[in-house]
Amino acid sequence: MQLGLIGLGKMGGNMRERVRRAGHEVVGYDRSPELQDVDSLEALVGALQAPRVVWVMVPAGDPTRETVEALGDLLEAGDVVVDGGNSKFTDDQVHADLLAQKGIGYVDAGVSGGVWGLQNGYALMVGGSKEDVAKVQPIFDALKPPLDKESDSPAGEGAGFVHAGPVGAGHFAKMVHNGIEYAMMQAYGEGYELLAAVDLIEDVPGVIASWTQGTVIRSWLLDLLVRALQEDPGLDDITGWAADSGEGRWTVEQAIEHAVPMPAISASLFARFSSRQDDSPTMKAVAALRNQFGGHAVKAREVEDPA
Amino acid sequence: MQLGLIGLGKMGGNMRERVRRAGHEVVGYDRSPELQDVDSLEALVGALQAPRVVWVMVPAGDPTRETVEALGDLLEAGDVVVDGGNSKFTDDQVHADLLAQKGIGYVDAGVSGGVWGLQNGYALMVGGSKEDVAKVQPIFDALKPPLDKESDSPAGEGAGFVHAGPVGAGHFAKMVHNGIEYAMMQAYGEGYELLAAVDLIEDVPGVIASWTQGTVIRSWLLDLLVRALQEDPGLDDITGWAADSGEGRWTVEQAIEHAVPMPAISASLFARFSSRQDDSPTMKAVAALRNQFGGHAVKAREVEDPA
Amino acid sequence: MQLGLIGLGKMGGNMRERVRRAGHEVVGYDRSPELQDVDSLEALVGALQAPRVVWVMVPAGDPTRETVEALGDLLEAGDVVVDGGNSKFTDDQVHADLLAQKGIGYVDAGVSGGVWGLQNGYALMVGGSKEDVAKVQPIFDALKPPLDKESDSPAGEGAGFVHAGPVGAGHFAKMVHNGIEYAMMQAYGEGYELLAAVDLIEDVPGVIASWTQGTVIRSWLLDLLVRALQEDPGLDDITGWAADSGEGRWTVEQAIEHAVPMPAISASLFARFSSRQDDSPTMKAVAALRNQFGGHAVKAREVEDPA
Amino acid sequence: MQLGLIGLGKMGGNMRERVRRAGHEVVGYDRSPELQDVDSLEALVGALQAPRVVWVMVPAGDPTRETVEALGDLLEAGDVVVDGGNSKFTDDQVHADLLAQKGIGYVDAGVSGGVWGLQNGYALMVGGSKEDVAKVQPIFDALKPPLDKESDSPAGEGAGFVHAGPVGAGHFAKMVHNGIEYAMMQAYGEGYELLAAVDLIEDVPGVIASWTQGTVIRSWLLDLLVRALQEDPGLDDITGWAADSGEGRWTVEQAIEHAVPMPAISASLFARFSSRQDDSPTMKAVAALRNQFGGHAVKAREVEDPA
Repeated sequence: MQLGLIGLGKMGGNMRERVRRAGHEVVGYDRSPELQDVDSLEALVGALQAPRVVWVMVPAGDPTRETVEALGDLLEAGDVVVDGGNSKFTDDQVHADLLAQKGIGYVDAGVSGGVWGLQNGYALMVGGSKEDVAKVQPIFDALKPPLDKESDSPAGEGAGFVHAGPVGAGHFAKMVHNGIEYAMMQAYGEGYELLAAVDLIEDVPGVIASWTQGTVIRSWLLDLLVRALQEDPGLDDITGWAADSGEGRWTVEQAIEHAVPMPAISASLFARFSSRQDDSPTMKAVAALRNQFGGHAVKAREVEDPA
Repeated sequence: MQLGLIGLGKMGGNMRERVRRAGHEVVGYDRSPELQDVDSLEALVGALQAPRVVWVMVPAGDPTRETVEALGDLLEAGDVVVDGGNSKFTDDQVHADLLAQKGIGYVDAGVSGGVWGLQNGYALMVGGSKEDVAKVQPIFDALKPPLDKESDSPAGEGAGFVHAGPVGAGHFAKMVHNGIEYAMMQAYGEGYELLAAVDLIEDVPGVIASWTQGTVIRSWLLDLLVRALQEDPGLDDITGWAADSGEGRWTVEQAIEHAVPMPAISASLFARFSSRQDDSPTMKAVAALRNQFGGHAVKAREVEDPA
Repeated sequence: MQLGLIGLGKMGGNMRERVRRAGHEVVGYDRSPELQDVDSLEALVGALQAPRVVWVMVPAGDPTRETVEALGDLLEAGDVVVDGGNSKFTDDQVHADLLAQKGIGYVDAGVSGGVWGLQNGYALMVGGSKEDVAKVQPIFDALKPPLDKESDSPAGEGAGFVHAGPVGAGHFAKMVHNGIEYAMMQAYGEGYELLAAVDLIEDVPGVIASWTQGTVIRSWLLDLLVRALQEDPGLDDITGWAADSGEGRWTVEQAIEHAVPMPAISASLFARFSSRQDDSPTMKAVAALRNQFGGHAVKAREVEDPA
Repeated sequence: MQLGLIGLGKMGGNMRERVRRAGHEVVGYDRSPELQDVDSLEALVGALQAPRVVWVMVPAGDPTRETVEALGDLLEAGDVVVDGGNSKFTDDQVHADLLAQKGIGYVDAGVSGGVWGLQNGYALMVGGSKEDVAKVQPIFDALKPPLDKESDSPAGEGAGFVHAGPVGAGHFAKMVHNGIEYAMMQAYGEGYELLAAVDLIEDVPGVIASWTQGTVIRSWLLDLLVRALQEDPGLDDITGWAADSGEGRWTVEQAIEHAVPMPAISASLFARFSSRQDDSPTMKAVAALRNQFGGHAVKAREVEDPA
């Protein structure tokens, strides 16, 4: 089938390649001339036969909103727009309503796989009506990881793709996936730090590598940690500065909205916030209090010697 | 080679079987007559040719201590005792010192694999001298998972076995492994709860199954969660009561000892404590305070109607 | 001066009394006939001379929104509306904009003091323009706690009242106050629980009472905990079920919005969520995982004996 | 009565002064000649009439242990030793047993009050037998804060002093006090940071000062925060580096020992650990993982330009 794909960056570019390898025709548009197959949204829409499927893979927020609005003007009833970006799930109903005015369908797709997706396939969590999802299914099948027949995984055909519910459900499921990801990374990080803190452990990378088979905590993330430690055994070349994208924040916000206790995921999110602070106002206040009641020494900000 | 194995319960029994399948001779002792190959420690030691390797697989604490002491009386210089149980790493040096008085070697081995170990192999983290570890190596090789040549795991030969350092390092590494396990389980649990809390997600087990391929959070634990949800899609048949064994507690204690921040693992440990409380004294105090300052209603303990 | 006061419940009723004791005239309206001075908003507005000050003390959300809208129709340029309820600070600018269309001023006032406010005074955190705040100042002065000249408190005249910033700043400051309150209550609760958990402490209420003078942790909340324990030394008559109002949630949401690490306050919020769960889906998942990998016993839901 | 006092530093020196002001005779010993009344423990014991009370106010651990052992040699049956330092409660029974061999009594006293104690009095939490505590009571009465008759505190005579239980109970109660202190300080710190993070709040010190009367969160610590902000409104002169003493760690250890969930106090302890790290190994691992799966940029350690 044909697919229109908007946004050909790190993710979109690899997805174009994977869909093409599966035998589909992909017409790609990107603002960068060197990446694009066509040079405008109009040209992209014109190159596709109705009913069209157009996949949007641009940054969440304004760029996605503007792209969806533009497609609302260009597409026609029976076409389907897929938002495969990292949109907040609450944006999806807005997008769907906007397109529904013209009879255009909408599917939201949470996509996991990162830079490994071209090779391994992309896991897909989608939301939308059965009818709309069905129109995109050949593309989903091309993107998702192939069934691993050697694997003893219990998920069977359910691995790598789910139609999670109505519009919004795909991005919600992907959001929760990322929240879990935060806490798993934090868990490995805390364990790594404790191993590295004691003289007793003489081979920290070796311990972590040993965990990759036969243990309860083996995982793909653990494999990646092994790789990272092979490249830099003491993690000496990087600093402990960790960005966060929206999904972790939204996961905790939703937990609060629904009164779900979420101590581990929230702790992991806050650890990232802390990692980016040069100095912590909270801990300044704590230090100031200790000084007030106990006369405890505080670390004064170092002052340049005026001489 | 020959192995003496003490403790033939759920773990020890399967390990005997796996070692035998690898072609070694195992002489097993257990207090239960129906499990034992020989009926006493004396008989076990008598059945082995020096230099002997005796693997202790009994509960941590007093049972292990008493077994090590008894072996100290029965074994001779050049023999090696392996503690493969869940001992606290601080016990290991005590055991090693006790046996060293008679020239007997000591190796501590953290073992992961649970009920799946017979089939998949057991991951092993060991501590001790090079010489002592070498004496046990054929048994370690029999127990550990075979190298998965199909796998693209980066650990290679290092997967499933590590000599982590001197006496104590094996149990320390296993302890940290279990601490990480707590936070990973908590992460999946929190994510599951949020998915289940919203109407938007129509297929919670399906979402979780979809995560098993192509995602960042795929892991063996996630596969197990898929299995659990296949057996009981709403987890209706079990209660949220989670035991904890010593390793999680010791991990947090060690973090405190070494000033390692450990917010996610500790939160996971505390969540288990909470899960076992019928009522929380902390939250009683909170409720009492709300009542004091705001006249907020408290839930009074229900009183049986005297009529 | 004159004050129109809408909402004469537990808080509003006591505030009317305190303002009257200070010599001001209060015209109160409430939906309940037995509480009201006048029987409609129209009558309330009619009873006041311009420029009027009308204080809204009704539940946050729709009730406040509707009251502000109604006042927008009834009041005139130069009048001022004060929202003294527990509105989210983001509502304030909406209210202010709505009233500004008619030249009516708006002040948001976070009010602390609970059932003790009539006796001790109410702490006030207000937001708005200097001009609008000035019009309400005599009422603020009547409500706030009197300056304690015996006290060695360093705040001096600044105790009990602050003009924190523009519209919204009052409710924001009150929101943060409540977030801190959550963690303080949790701190005392956790300490209480640990004292009560050990046989070593023979007089738990006595220990807590002793902390009320000379210690670092003495506070008004601690005094209230002493009272609660005097009434019920083992807190046997209440259950550990703790509600939460919006402010705690909003505080954590704002922390996430501004990338402020907030581990203690968020932990306190989540503890309240947990306190209201009969069973925890998170911990069901954890228990299910333990069962899967270790064959660990789970607590099955008890089934009534069919016989 | 007479009191022997060992250790005349910041705390001990002020305590000597307060006891003397109450009309008692204090014989003080310190290693520093400029502080001491007598120049040896022997001289101190010799200057007191039996039955003697000797108060030890030296650093916890070895210094206290050695002092207690020395007093065991010098004192006689019927005398009482008080350990008023920051000893771990588990040390107390060891000390008591050691002295009991010679019929010497032992009382452990947790002391709160810091640099403010001379002026305000010291709160005392004590453990020991009724008989031993009674022998020291006049000294306790001299040290503790006077009953504040103006106060409406509910504790009455129970404020500032408690006999909490047998040997060890005093230090246990003080340990819990300090754990609570950690979380209260963290709570104020987190609230301060959020206020300071938003433009909406134009007067952060003013907001905090306003909280000191009439609010739910008023406390002595809050007064101290007001003072700190008066001295340095933006806390610009100090860094967010917060030490921790043993009590916070022991509180969390005891919570783990007794399966008491302690999320807020532990989070506060870990925040202090983080505050002292130049770089976080945990967050290095997290950053390395993000880089592995997403190609996300990491902050490389800055390298000096070789040119």
